[in-house]
Amino acid sequence: MNKETFEARRESLRRLLHEKGLAALLVSQPANRFYLSGFELHDCQCNESSGCLIITADGKDWLCTDSRYEEAACQLWPAERVFIYKGSSSEALNGLLKGLFRTQPIGFEAEHLPWGYVQRLEPGLTLEAADGLVEKLRAVKDDEEIRLIEASVLLNHKMLAWLPSILVPGSDEASVAWSIEKFYRENGASELAFPSIVAKDANAALPHYAPDQPAVFTENCMVLVDEGCRLGRYCSDMTRTYWIGEKPSPRFTEMLEHVQEAQRRAIAALRPGITGRDVHKVAVDYFASCGMDKFFTHGLGHGVGLETHEGPRLSPRATEVLVPGNIVTIEPGLYFPGWGGARWEHMAVITDEGCRVL
Amino acid sequence: MNKETFEARRESLRRLLHEKGLAALLVSQPANRFYLSGFELHDCQCNESSGCLIITADGKDWLCTDSRYEEAACQLWPAERVFIYKGSSSEALNGLLKGLFRTQPIGFEAEHLPWGYVQRLEPGLTLEAADGLVEKLRAVKDDEEIRLIEASVLLNHKMLAWLPSILVPGSDEASVAWSIEKFYRENGASELAFPSIVAKDANAALPHYAPDQPAVFTENCMVLVDEGCRLGRYCSDMTRTYWIGEKPSPRFTEMLEHVQEAQRRAIAALRPGITGRDVHKVAVDYFASCGMDKFFTHGLGHGVGLETHEGPRLSPRATEVLVPGNIVTIEPGLYFPGWGGARWEHMAVITDEGCRVL
Repeated sequence: MNKETFEARRESLRRLLHEKGLAALLVSQPANRFYLSGFELHDCQCNESSGCLIITADGKDWLCTDSRYEEAACQLWPAERVFIYKGSSSEALNGLLKGLFRTQPIGFEAEHLPWGYVQRLEPGLTLEAADGLVEKLRAVKDDEEIRLIEASVLLNHKMLAWLPSILVPGSDEASVAWSIEKFYRENGASELAFPSIVAKDANAALPHYAPDQPAVFTENCMVLVDEGCRLGRYCSDMTRTYWIGEKPSPRFTEMLEHVQEAQRRAIAALRPGITGRDVHKVAVDYFASCGMDKFFTHGLGHGVGLETHEGPRLSPRATEVLVPGNIVTIEPGLYFPGWGGARWEHMAVITDEGCRVL
Repeated sequence: MNKETFEARRESLRRLLHEKGLAALLVSQPANRFYLSGFELHDCQCNESSGCLIITADGKDWLCTDSRYEEAACQLWPAERVFIYKGSSSEALNGLLKGLFRTQPIGFEAEHLPWGYVQRLEPGLTLEAADGLVEKLRAVKDDEEIRLIEASVLLNHKMLAWLPSILVPGSDEASVAWSIEKFYRENGASELAFPSIVAKDANAALPHYAPDQPAVFTENCMVLVDEGCRLGRYCSDMTRTYWIGEKPSPRFTEMLEHVQEAQRRAIAALRPGITGRDVHKVAVDYFASCGMDKFFTHGLGHGVGLETHEGPRLSPRATEVLVPGNIVTIEPGLYFPGWGGARWEHMAVITDEGCRVL
C-alpha cells in the first residue's frame, strides 16, 4: 500500500466527518490507525498504545506518538504534523486538541479508549462518541486488499492440503496446533491470525476450546481445526473437521454433511443487497429442516481483513445489507455437548453478481 | 495454584475494599481476573472479554462470563454465583449489580474498561474508578509465584546459553527471532512473553525495534536481543548485547562495560525500603559520571509476573518503596542513534536483606 491509498482512505473518512458535523476524529484503535496511515498495526509489546491519529475535517491530519516511534512516524507523515508526546498522552493530546479545535465537536472511539483516559482527555473539549466510522470503510475491501487477502487464504489452503498428513493417532491437539504455526511462519506469515483451535471429539463441541491438558488422537476420532494466518498484514480464517481413521461413524458423517449443506446454501444466498441476518437465517432454516437448529449456537460468519473479526457480520443482529467488496467467513457448525461437533468454514468476497469463494 | 491460593488473594483484596469503602470491585483486566480466580489469563481470540469477576465486601464473589465458558467457570466457582450473560455484557451486568448493591459504591477498572462500556454499565449504579488495587497485590509475589518465575527465568537462561550458536554472519534478525520462539515452544513455554527484539547495529539504538526488512548479520557487528517466554503462566524477560566476530570494536566494548557496571551498581542498591526512583538514579548517576546519561533514555526496570510489564517500576516517577517479594528487571542501556546500542537485563527478587538475581 502506498501513501496515495492511505490518503484516499482519509478523504473517505473526511466525508463521514462532514456528514456527522465533526471537526475531527481521534483514531486510537490499532487496525483503524494502520488502515488510515500505514502506522503500526499493533500496539506495542508493553500494553501501551503506539500512538493515534487526528483526522480533521479541514484536511490537516496529525500523527501522534512517543519518541520511540518518531523516526517511523516521520517516514509516513509531514514532520510538521507529527506530534511527539512525553509522559501522559491523554494530557498532551488535550493540549494539542484545545489549541486546534477549541470547543468544536471532536469524535473519539468510545468502545476502545478506556474511561479513565477519556476523563483526562476531555477537560475544555467537546468530545463525542463516534465509533464505527473507520470500521465502516474497512468492511469494503479495495482491489489491493482483496489480492492481499487472497494470498493469505492461498497459504491457508496450502496448509490445509498438508494438514491431514500430521493428523494421526498418537499426535495431540497441542502439537498439531504448534505444527500449524510453524508451517505458517516458515512459509512467510508474520503470525497466526488467532490462536489455532485443534479440538478432539467432545472438545469439538466447545466453539472456543483452548486445552489445558491436550487430548491425544486415537484411531477413529474426530478433530475440529479452526485456524488462520496473517500474511502481508491481512488475515485468513478457515475451519475443517476431520475423521482420523478409516471408518467415520455414521453420526459423524451425517453431522458433517448437514454442516456442509448449510454452508453451500448460505454461499448460494450471498449477494449484494442481502442482509447478514438473512444469510444467517438460510443456515438456520436448513438446520431447522433437519431438526438440528438448536445445535447451531453462534453466528454464521464475520468480516475478515486487518483483523480476524471485523464487519460485516452474518448473524441474527446484522441488519445492514452486504455490498461488493465485503469479505466474510461462512462457518456453520453443529455442536453436541459431551460427544463432538463439526464446523466448516470458507471465506468469500461479495461481487457484483453474487460471491466468489476464496 | 489451588483454590485456596485464589481465595486468599480475594481475601486480601477484600481488606482493600473495606479500606476504600467499596461494596464490590468489578475486575475485568485479564491478568487481574486470572490472579484472583484462575479463570482465563487471556481474553478470547476475537477481541472480546472472556468475562469478569465481582469481588464483594461481604465475601459472596461472582464470576461472570458467556455460555462458551460456562463449563470452565463452573469448575472454578460455586455454580450459584456463576453469572452467564447473553448479548451485551455491560447491560446484563448493570442488572446484576443493581440487584446486588443498589446504590452502594462499586469500584471498576477505569484504565481498562472502555468509555462506552461504562456508559452502558452505569445507569442506576454508583460507580467509582478504583484502579491498581489488584495490581498492588500482584506486585508482591508469594513463594509459589517466585518458584514459577524462577522456572521461567531458568528456561530463559538455557535459551541464552544456546543463542550464541545461531548468532552468525549470514543469519538475520527475523530468523533469529523465530529460532528463539521455536526454542521456547519446543521446551515447554506456552508462548513468548512479548515479541522478541533482535536488532543489529544502528537498529540496536531503537529501544522497541521491530523490523520490516530484517538486517543480515555480518562479520563484526553488534546484535541486541531482548526476549522472554511464558512458562507455567509466568513471564521472564532478559536482554543481552552481543558482538558477532572475533574483534569487538573498542567503542562497543566500552559501551557494554558501562552498561554492565550501571547494572551491577543498581543491583547492589536493590533492597527493601529503597524507592524505584532511587534505584533508577543509581544507574543514571553512574552514566552521568561517564558523561553518558543522555544516552540512557528509558526507565531502569519494571516488575514481571503474569504480565511482562507490571509493578513495581524502577523509574524517575516511581516513589513507592520496594518490599520483599517484588520481582523486577534491571535493564540499563545506552543508545547512540545511527550507530548502535547496548542493553543488559537480569531479573531479581527483593529479599529481606537485599535482592537475589534470578
